[in-house]
Amino acid sequence: MAKAELQTLLTQTPEEGFALAIKLAQKGVEVTQPSEDTRKLLRPVYSRDPDSLIAVSQVIAIHYQTIAAANNYWRTWTPQYWQNY
Amino acid sequence: MAKAELQTLLTQTPEEGFALAIKLAQKGVEVTQPSEDTRKLLRPVYSRDPDSLIAVSQVIAIHYQTIAAANNYWRTWTPQYWQNY
Amino acid sequence: MAKAELQTLLTQTPEEGFALAIKLAQKGVEVTQPSEDTRKLLRPVYSRDPDSLIAVSQVIAIHYQTIAAANNYWRTWTPQYWQNY
Amino acid sequence: MAKAELQTLLTQTPEEGFALAIKLAQKGVEVTQPSEDTRKLLRPVYSRDPDSLIAVSQVIAIHYQTIAAANNYWRTWTPQYWQNY
Amino acid sequence: MAKAELQTLLTQTPEEGFALAIKLAQKGVEVTQPSEDTRKLLRPVYSRDPDSLIAVSQVIAIHYQTIAAANNYWRTWTPQYWQNY
Amino acid sequence: MAKAELQTLLTQTPEEGFALAIKLAQKGVEVTQPSEDTRKLLRPVYSRDPDSLIAVSQVIAIHYQTIAAANNYWRTWTPQYWQNY
Repeated sequence: MAKAELQTLLTQTPEEGFALAIKLAQKGVEVTQPSEDTRKLLRPVYSRDPDSLIAVSQVIAIHYQTIAAANNYWRTWTPQYWQNY
Repeated sequence: MAKAELQTLLTQTPEEGFALAIKLAQKGVEVTQPSEDTRKLLRPVYSRDPDSLIAVSQVIAIHYQTIAAANNYWRTWTPQYWQNY
Repeated sequence: MAKAELQTLLTQTPEEGFALAIKLAQKGVEVTQPSEDTRKLLRPVYSRDPDSLIAVSQVIAIHYQTIAAANNYWRTWTPQYWQNY
Repeated sequence: MAKAELQTLLTQTPEEGFALAIKLAQKGVEVTQPSEDTRKLLRPVYSRDPDSLIAVSQVIAIHYQTIAAANNYWRTWTPQYWQNY
Repeated sequence: MAKAELQTLLTQTPEEGFALAIKLAQKGVEVTQPSEDTRKLLRPVYSRDPDSLIAVSQVIAIHYQTIAAANNYWRTWTPQYWQNY
Repeated sequence: MAKAELQTLLTQTPEEGFALAIKLAQKGVEVTQPSEDTRKLLRPVYSRDPDSLIAVSQVIAIHYQTIAAANNYWRTWTPQYWQNY
């Protein structure tokens, strides 16, 4: 089996959510460049280019917004404004 | 018929939602460059440029935010703060 | 009359919403470069530059977030967590 | 008086909201380059560079998200899921 | 004391909120380049580069989204769909 | 132990939330370039490039959106539209 399907956006912890955001960012690259060999050739290029690194970090940040919202920010408490009822 | 119209943002799974995000990102490109021939000529360029790949991944990430929200993040449970009523 | 005013963000379908997102992205360009002649001169440049095409797609994606939210994602059902009352 | 203060994010129509988004995008530039003379010198440069035009359009799109949300998307109806009560 | 800590995201007006967004954008730069002297050296460069100016405006726009949401968009009225109860 | 796991998105203050946003932005870079030595070599490059600095600030801004939402914007009051019940 090549790649696991994305089953859920829910994770146990913020740390696992971040790992999922990374996975989604990579998945978005694999779509356009499906060849693992080509991606490996490119890796030394972008992994030493600060601007590429920052851009990758940005894509992760956008996915992390989605995942954090999906998990209600892993909150275990009730936001204050709900307690006013 | 050339292309299917976008009927709904709702998908059964997070994986299908991701596929739709990819489709929307491509649709956004096709608008500006409707010629499939030209797009095919450009493909070898951007599919080997790390920064282009990251940028595509970012557009997908933005659409995925929309689609995930539309699907209530494919949640099958109730966020905790709603249970306090 | 030159251009129709933007009357509403509401559309009948996700497809029409996407068309509106494209219109808003163009409107954002016209603001800075109001000359249609100049914009037409620039078109062959950016419509063959992959990075420009991806960037346009991104602006469309951002507007699509707004429009999709405005239309409650064209949902015809009630999110599950509202059914718990 | 040099510039009007930003009093409210509320506008009567989506069109006026777009005009406000443009104003905010410009305001964000004026902060870093307060000299109107310098900005005027730069104008012929970026108003003929497709990528700059797209980037300006993106900043407008981000502000338009904020303004549209502030105005509840200029909706005059109740989202369906509120009607289920 | 060098810099005031960020105490709150709440501001009295949309104008003050914009000023805070600018402050946060600068704070994000200071993190990576803490030397005020170096930042001052860079200023003539980016303050005359249209693309840098647009990029700064974009960071401000993103922070303004956060601050506007924190302040409930400085609304003094109730969104219509709440009045249906 | 190399790095602490991300335990929570909740912080006591907006200032601490900003510090967490910075941490997440860095974490997104470390994923792609895990070598601390290489990152240190790159630092003098991007810390003196205005556009890199602005890009870093943008990634922080995106993470700050997530963290601020997670913390209900550190609000201690109830938004007005909730008081109408």
